[in-house]
Amino acid sequence: MYEGAVQDLIDELGRLPGVGPKSAQRIAFHLLAADPVDVRRLVTALTEVKERVRFCSVCGNVTEEEQCKICRDPRRDVAVICVVEEPKDVVAIEKTREFHGRYHVLGGAISPIEGIGPDDLRIRELMSRLADDTITELILATDPNLEGEATATYLARLVKPMNIRVTRLASGLPVGGDLEYADEVTLGRAFEGRRLLDV
Amino acid sequence: MYEGAVQDLIDELGRLPGVGPKSAQRIAFHLLAADPVDVRRLVTALTEVKERVRFCSVCGNVTEEEQCKICRDPRRDVAVICVVEEPKDVVAIEKTREFHGRYHVLGGAISPIEGIGPDDLRIRELMSRLADDTITELILATDPNLEGEATATYLARLVKPMNIRVTRLASGLPVGGDLEYADEVTLGRAFEGRRLLDV
Repeated sequence: MYEGAVQDLIDELGRLPGVGPKSAQRIAFHLLAADPVDVRRLVTALTEVKERVRFCSVCGNVTEEEQCKICRDPRRDVAVICVVEEPKDVVAIEKTREFHGRYHVLGGAISPIEGIGPDDLRIRELMSRLADDTITELILATDPNLEGEATATYLARLVKPMNIRVTRLASGLPVGGDLEYADEVTLGRAFEGRRLLDV
Repeated sequence: MYEGAVQDLIDELGRLPGVGPKSAQRIAFHLLAADPVDVRRLVTALTEVKERVRFCSVCGNVTEEEQCKICRDPRRDVAVICVVEEPKDVVAIEKTREFHGRYHVLGGAISPIEGIGPDDLRIRELMSRLADDTITELILATDPNLEGEATATYLARLVKPMNIRVTRLASGLPVGGDLEYADEVTLGRAFEGRRLLDV
């Protein structure tokens, strides 16, 4: 509908996840009217991310070095590995400041519907990390949904023969939430995982 | 939260209109995993839009030439000008194939709250287009909201002394809509603007 360059930009923006044709048009006109310096900053950020960012050779997290800053940090506990699906899960867990071990980023979860099997994830790399006897606990922090649960079960079975404690994050009521609005599965899990109040 | 380039990209994407921190993160990781060719295409589109696109010297629409393709088209009726707020309004009207005149893009609407007055819009340029006596009708197609109505009223008063027919797009029920769901102002306008059915 628009001439050349404007339409090209709308088309390209429309290919991004979560950006529909209306948003793409809105963003394109915003950029048209924006300071050229701002657009150049966005262009630089896009270019640099492809040039500089790669995946940590140990855990698979995003990094600009050979290893990510968590794997490089000597203060982190090398005996505990927390398995997550995506780099954004690492960020979410780091925000809690509860975990001081290292991570392993699978790059997704097992999903037969999407055609993602164990071989498409960084499971072989995880197994070789577990092989050297320093690991005492493996925390499975894949998402609490169908795919995440399947992946956790698959990994737990795979690791069972080794002498490693395998744990899964607790399911239950969200803190600050309202009991009456919790779905029945979550509420059921909260009962199952109830703890003795030591007062 | 992320290292260097990834965080830079998330920050830049988060500055775009309608892109929150979660979407920015999602888009950034999509681009990280995307084919470098796709990212390069987006970068090219961004760069070209700033280099090539400017505003038509006649109507203010976006174009890559001195004049936009509508102003250059000799088949368009030069006696009718349709005034709109933004280039995307031109596209919306062109899709109807109902209008064969030319446009004038104001670049917004009068809005005291946002500090946009008549001098911030391309009203002076409109007046000089109306000065040469070839224009017989001015269609005010600003948005049917507070700012758009105010702008239309302002323009109608300004043009009144000239011998030009000034019209406003009809307000009424959307086609395919449901009468019971129409808001009362729209329904009121639909009554006001009712037409004789000639059967």
